[in-house]
Amino acid sequence: MQVGVYGLGRFGSFWAEVLAQHFQVKAYNRNPERTTPEGVERVSLAELGECDTIFLCVAISAMEPVVRELAPYLGAGNTLVDTCSVKVYPVEVMRRHVPENVGILATHPMFGPDSAGDGLAGLPLIYWPERLDEETAAHWVDWFGRIGLRTIRMSPDEHDHEAAYTQGITHFIGRVLDDLSVQPSPIGTMGYRKILEVVEQTCNDPVQLFLDLQRYNPYTTEMRAKLKASLERVLAQFEE
Amino acid sequence: MQVGVYGLGRFGSFWAEVLAQHFQVKAYNRNPERTTPEGVERVSLAELGECDTIFLCVAISAMEPVVRELAPYLGAGNTLVDTCSVKVYPVEVMRRHVPENVGILATHPMFGPDSAGDGLAGLPLIYWPERLDEETAAHWVDWFGRIGLRTIRMSPDEHDHEAAYTQGITHFIGRVLDDLSVQPSPIGTMGYRKILEVVEQTCNDPVQLFLDLQRYNPYTTEMRAKLKASLERVLAQFEE
Repeated sequence: MQVGVYGLGRFGSFWAEVLAQHFQVKAYNRNPERTTPEGVERVSLAELGECDTIFLCVAISAMEPVVRELAPYLGAGNTLVDTCSVKVYPVEVMRRHVPENVGILATHPMFGPDSAGDGLAGLPLIYWPERLDEETAAHWVDWFGRIGLRTIRMSPDEHDHEAAYTQGITHFIGRVLDDLSVQPSPIGTMGYRKILEVVEQTCNDPVQLFLDLQRYNPYTTEMRAKLKASLERVLAQFEE
Repeated sequence: MQVGVYGLGRFGSFWAEVLAQHFQVKAYNRNPERTTPEGVERVSLAELGECDTIFLCVAISAMEPVVRELAPYLGAGNTLVDTCSVKVYPVEVMRRHVPENVGILATHPMFGPDSAGDGLAGLPLIYWPERLDEETAAHWVDWFGRIGLRTIRMSPDEHDHEAAYTQGITHFIGRVLDDLSVQPSPIGTMGYRKILEVVEQTCNDPVQLFLDLQRYNPYTTEMRAKLKASLERVLAQFEE
């Protein structure tokens, strides 16, 4: 089986290396200067289209141009797998732009090179066989499990609702506190140290991920409005 | 040396027991039905006034009535020690209401029965000898150190500024997220689990502590205004 990876950014490079330990992996990256991970063959877009399964490892906001660019090279026998941190939007983009005989598997690998530093065991991967024959779906879900991942089947809509109120809220709070320039303190309580860890973790991720998580998840607008309303209710206790 | 404790609430009972392992301890509590901790003698307000050092273990908002009630029984030889989570306000209350020959030691023990579950070693205690002879001040700071506490000398004003932007902000965020009813999720990230821990920790404390921390610290009004401004700046990125 030939596996393709579109995008050799931080996650794509890491994921291509993981895949290359089990499959023949071909990768495409728009910028030719990007380093090729070990065991991976660098190919053209047309050659990428010949792979059985192609993982898209690109920013959420890049999904539409990337899928449109790749679509002419796809047809029967291809499976497209996105790896975005939101799910409704990329599934809708893939459905809209690729031929109907192309399989679609939506995934959200909830980890990256940092959190996988000690291995993949137990790390969660959300998946949804949006449009896929059972054999291919079972192959990938089995493989995710065999490399140690904890697979969770969840519809794109349910995923985005859950993600808005977990990952979305965490990143939002992290950015707000970063804007406030919270600092370590000699009298920092245990709770405050957790607050600092949230800031450190969320603000280490690229700001593009933060913006995309907020903009492309259909539930984050509601989450932000509710968060603002909660803040105002708590604040109101201290007004004159 | 006779040591007194005013207030046998959750912290007062715990602290009286710690003191009773090293001193003869007398305690007063307005409500006679409250249980007396082991090794502690229950006394009247007049008898409490005869103790060399009296720890006040009462809510910040109770400081003024308590100090006024106790003041007639105090004079030369007495040292009053408050244990509030803010420092400027209780010091000002003690200065205003007790005779000038009464010593004043301000402390903020940054722990309680929960965090001291595994012992006192390394737990922080902030102190400030507001009006106290050197011998008595040295006695208590030495003793705090001998029982394992990490003592930090800090002026009430510096304490309240640091506390507003650490403990104050943590409790505020905790209450906002509790108002939003954040819940555990199968797809909760590590950062999100820290957020849930902040909510659990801060909302386990009595709501009176939260309100008092926000109302009696001169810097929390500014902190809350800055937090609101940061939230609005981050929100503004997602407006039309």
